[in-house]
Amino acid sequence: MSKYIFGVDVGGTSVKMGLFDITGMVIDKWEIPTRTENGGERILPDIAESINEKIAEKQYLKEDIAGIGLAVPGPVTGNGVVNNAVNLGWGITPVKETMERLCGIPAEVGNDANVAALGEMWKGGGQGHTSLVLVTLGTGVGGGVIIDGRLVTGADGAGGEIGHMHVMDDEEEACNCGCKGCLEQYGSATGIVRLAKRTLTRTEKPSVLRETDVTAKAVFDAVKDGDRVAEDIAKEFGEILGKGFAMIASVLNPEAFVIGGGVSKAGEVLFDYIRPAFEKYVFPGAKGAKFVLATLGNDAGIYGSAKLVLDKN
Amino acid sequence: MSKYIFGVDVGGTSVKMGLFDITGMVIDKWEIPTRTENGGERILPDIAESINEKIAEKQYLKEDIAGIGLAVPGPVTGNGVVNNAVNLGWGITPVKETMERLCGIPAEVGNDANVAALGEMWKGGGQGHTSLVLVTLGTGVGGGVIIDGRLVTGADGAGGEIGHMHVMDDEEEACNCGCKGCLEQYGSATGIVRLAKRTLTRTEKPSVLRETDVTAKAVFDAVKDGDRVAEDIAKEFGEILGKGFAMIASVLNPEAFVIGGGVSKAGEVLFDYIRPAFEKYVFPGAKGAKFVLATLGNDAGIYGSAKLVLDKN
Repeated sequence: MSKYIFGVDVGGTSVKMGLFDITGMVIDKWEIPTRTENGGERILPDIAESINEKIAEKQYLKEDIAGIGLAVPGPVTGNGVVNNAVNLGWGITPVKETMERLCGIPAEVGNDANVAALGEMWKGGGQGHTSLVLVTLGTGVGGGVIIDGRLVTGADGAGGEIGHMHVMDDEEEACNCGCKGCLEQYGSATGIVRLAKRTLTRTEKPSVLRETDVTAKAVFDAVKDGDRVAEDIAKEFGEILGKGFAMIASVLNPEAFVIGGGVSKAGEVLFDYIRPAFEKYVFPGAKGAKFVLATLGNDAGIYGSAKLVLDKN
Repeated sequence: MSKYIFGVDVGGTSVKMGLFDITGMVIDKWEIPTRTENGGERILPDIAESINEKIAEKQYLKEDIAGIGLAVPGPVTGNGVVNNAVNLGWGITPVKETMERLCGIPAEVGNDANVAALGEMWKGGGQGHTSLVLVTLGTGVGGGVIIDGRLVTGADGAGGEIGHMHVMDDEEEACNCGCKGCLEQYGSATGIVRLAKRTLTRTEKPSVLRETDVTAKAVFDAVKDGDRVAEDIAKEFGEILGKGFAMIASVLNPEAFVIGGGVSKAGEVLFDYIRPAFEKYVFPGAKGAKFVLATLGNDAGIYGSAKLVLDKN
């Protein structure tokens, strides 16, 4: 059995790379810039070069490497072809085939949000669970669904697009995806700011949020300080997210929801607002889902992509 | 390899039984009554007796039988234990273990709605797909989710409870489950009647529905005859179901939705109303899902339970 795995998380500005042993211990971790010019044509060769250099530096043999896992920001079809990754400049790109040709090592490819779910299950907040839903509340809302230990990638690579579940009928502004009333419009960092501004306009109550830059962090900091207006905003946020998670749980009955992304830095206080709404809306038989925080932060992608390789072996 | 499989669908009034070869051909099909008295204590012994008689009648050996699959109306946990099946009078019942003891043949157990999804994928409307969502629009709304050929049973056996997804915020009546605004309140046969009565009260327009017993069938028959009020009812029905299916597709990106149950007898006209709403609400990358009709009717359970056995072999 080969002894090492490369886990690669390809982002729009940098590529995070990890060298793992097969138990999931990190041996080395580094980054290279993402060169998106000319349709991102240098991205895969740059990654291959970095991997080949690392193998030489460590004096490994190619046979020592079980594989290279790659997490990419776009939909991935079954054979490792990425179908438009806007942030990388890619159109339809045969990532698996290209990496295998450039490195002479088997490669596995997954969507970054999906792969992060695998990472959190393996070594993060989802440890001990085999069916879970990762929801990343960041600039947008991403997600990954794992059922019985396996990723739900979807027929067109669009599995886990939780941020684009319709959760609100009377929304008038459009989401980036073109629909109206997507979870992302309320649960992302920018979504919370939107909710906050609406609430601050609607009421005249005093709030520390009137004297500061309104950010997701400022809202939850104010909640912790007992600010009533901030509590109203958190209630609305929790109501919408809890309702969305309840819809998912009624269909999938997962063991756990793992919450990550920048907004999750607010901590367990999020669950104080999400859980009551979840319990109000969920099918009673699926009420048992746990809510836990993601723990791997920006490393979820490299862990998850290493796990992609392990799962194929 | 053993040559035959029993597929058993345990309902509240009768038990449907099928004898299959391993290609899924039906060799024999029959029913026995479900005796629910005394906590349903006779149900499993009756089934075992009927199976043992059939084996004797056909002059098979026990080794010829690959297994017995059972579909039951209640949540099933991983080890074949049924956790309350109200319609059968059962509390916690170790169905797998009991059947194996009574027949001396391996048994597999699944929730009836989930198992029906497996049947429709194997031999019904879902053939050719490996990830699909079965939605049965009957007295209630049931469902089963299959991802990459495998059933999503859920952490507590409550996977596929699509009828209890929250889809409507401003509902005032409660669903059987205790929540308000469940898909079942609009998509079931009784749900359609409810929608129809509301619409008939709201408008004074003429409609054939004012001169007949309002049923789901009557509504869709009237739609086919161009009745405007019936069309309004169908639009509301389609709007709500399409929205619910869009939520599911944004999370799972399945290849197909398979629609069964009594309401589905209305035929493809249902999709004329469901699909436009689906497309309005779904994440664009998951728009490709097909809508097809279930074809096995009441036999979905015996087919699916036979497939449960095959999948374990």
